[in-house]
Amino acid sequence: MSRKPKKLLNNPSDVPLEQLEGLLHACNGKLTKVEGYSGVICSDIQSDRVIVVTGGGSGHEPMFAGYVGKGLADAAALGEIFASPSPDIIIETTKAAQKGKGVLFVYGNYAGDNMNFDIAAELLEEEGIQVKTVRVTDDISAAPLSKMNDRRGVAGDMYVLKIAGAAAESGYDLEELYEVTAKANFNTRTMGVALGACSIPQTGKFNFELADDELELGMGIHGEPGVRRQKMTSADEINGEIIENLCADINLQAGDKVCVTINNLGSSTYTELLIANRKVHQELNARNIQVYDTLIGGYCTSQEMAGYSVTVFRLDDELQKLYDMPCDSFAWRK
Amino acid sequence: MSRKPKKLLNNPSDVPLEQLEGLLHACNGKLTKVEGYSGVICSDIQSDRVIVVTGGGSGHEPMFAGYVGKGLADAAALGEIFASPSPDIIIETTKAAQKGKGVLFVYGNYAGDNMNFDIAAELLEEEGIQVKTVRVTDDISAAPLSKMNDRRGVAGDMYVLKIAGAAAESGYDLEELYEVTAKANFNTRTMGVALGACSIPQTGKFNFELADDELELGMGIHGEPGVRRQKMTSADEINGEIIENLCADINLQAGDKVCVTINNLGSSTYTELLIANRKVHQELNARNIQVYDTLIGGYCTSQEMAGYSVTVFRLDDELQKLYDMPCDSFAWRK
Repeated sequence: MSRKPKKLLNNPSDVPLEQLEGLLHACNGKLTKVEGYSGVICSDIQSDRVIVVTGGGSGHEPMFAGYVGKGLADAAALGEIFASPSPDIIIETTKAAQKGKGVLFVYGNYAGDNMNFDIAAELLEEEGIQVKTVRVTDDISAAPLSKMNDRRGVAGDMYVLKIAGAAAESGYDLEELYEVTAKANFNTRTMGVALGACSIPQTGKFNFELADDELELGMGIHGEPGVRRQKMTSADEINGEIIENLCADINLQAGDKVCVTINNLGSSTYTELLIANRKVHQELNARNIQVYDTLIGGYCTSQEMAGYSVTVFRLDDELQKLYDMPCDSFAWRK
Repeated sequence: MSRKPKKLLNNPSDVPLEQLEGLLHACNGKLTKVEGYSGVICSDIQSDRVIVVTGGGSGHEPMFAGYVGKGLADAAALGEIFASPSPDIIIETTKAAQKGKGVLFVYGNYAGDNMNFDIAAELLEEEGIQVKTVRVTDDISAAPLSKMNDRRGVAGDMYVLKIAGAAAESGYDLEELYEVTAKANFNTRTMGVALGACSIPQTGKFNFELADDELELGMGIHGEPGVRRQKMTSADEINGEIIENLCADINLQAGDKVCVTINNLGSSTYTELLIANRKVHQELNARNIQVYDTLIGGYCTSQEMAGYSVTVFRLDDELQKLYDMPCDSFAWRK
């Protein structure tokens, strides 16, 4: 990395709005901004069903706004870079999207998001809008399995949103939608590795430092400490450890069926992502675990952080049926 | 950037094969490796039609192998990192894919690729396989408009391959396919900006140096010199200049219809890509040029190069019809 971050921007304080405008242009009318608030809704939401609202800090593009679309989230409330959206953004975004059949909040498990989405849920309930919440907790590095509810939400958000969106379109009621989405979250596990730092445009400084010959296993998507720093080693060694940890954590068994995402945290090369995918598939094949679908690319980034994460999402019959449904958003078209 | 490149790899000399294996795993049987050669073919090619063969150096993933699939290229011959595939790879890949109705070569205009694909074409013709060639020349920074045939092929390869693949599937004969593909190339223009260097795994060194406070406008995807180095400035200034140059070069007029790609060369953030897209759309809107579709992401990369390119692809009725056809490859699903 540079000794200083280097990005081609305008005024750093305009970044969240400008990048949202860029996204809206790219979506060609399929996405609508909430008037006066930093939120977006799908322009064409079926009425008479539960809606799915997501959100969180900006800076992880294409997460979260990029997952608003047919068969995915119906709306996203967007904070500043690496900062939760405030309750009013969440409330107004939800109101702009909701159809009177209830709302499922689906977002990554972070203290700031939890607080603001909970406040929003309470105020929406007072207005007669029923809200339930699933917090995504896929990052196995963030806490041991026994404290799964303390884990952070990272790239696995995408699978949980996919299932929630498909189930909402299929007519699940709020309780059913909550159940299947919670199941999707339970079946999603992620572990990452970082080689270089991320920076926030407004500070113009890296969030952490990592020596030129070091990597950090399990780092979070804002630079939260991982499980270990070590000297650079071979890709197969690190990727083998990551997939072994994921298999053990979710207790994958021969005959299980999973989807895999190799997610670029920012500035890793496709070369590295593809070489990681090779090892992940080799290890899953060796365990007789079927890979149903594989995605490789930038799905939940952390600005220019070098590194990537591996997500496994275990399917059962219900989840596979929902996974197979089409979706159409900036980040994911299926 | 680091003073030294930092990537998580195994043996650097195994990179091309290992990343290809990773891609094959991701494609779940839709892509088949050519036995004994560094080439891939679509696993399910309709018979009785012309086929489209692409290729070039590796290191630009998902280009080229990622564009092999239904409605895109039928096959790709792959060289080492930043080096053309040898004639035997091109020949064997073509033979593995061809259906006796002729072959269109579509690849970026570089001396090494031109030489090897031309040798391959000659030898294939001797065996009775008819070959025609379209060299992609979208990089407007590489030579003036008057010397368009000297320009390099960069991200615009994707549009030219899209049109060629759709036309081949539509039953165009070799001459018709050549004509429409050459038209697609003529209607595709790209300009890029680099903020940081790329490196080749086998050398472990950066291909060029760029000061921490400098950018280079018009740099090629292997680090070929661009049109100008200058101090870092605002995104809108650079992006405004890029889109103005593109509009002038292709002579866009009010009422024209274009597709736009903001292509990540490697380690630029989505934030920067989206902010670039905002300015590009603003400028095109101001000129009454309609943006028909927008793609943003890593479509033709240059390892970890920081920077991005902007491509405009002008549609006419025939090109729009072909653009609208579905396609399904690792890099592009439509």
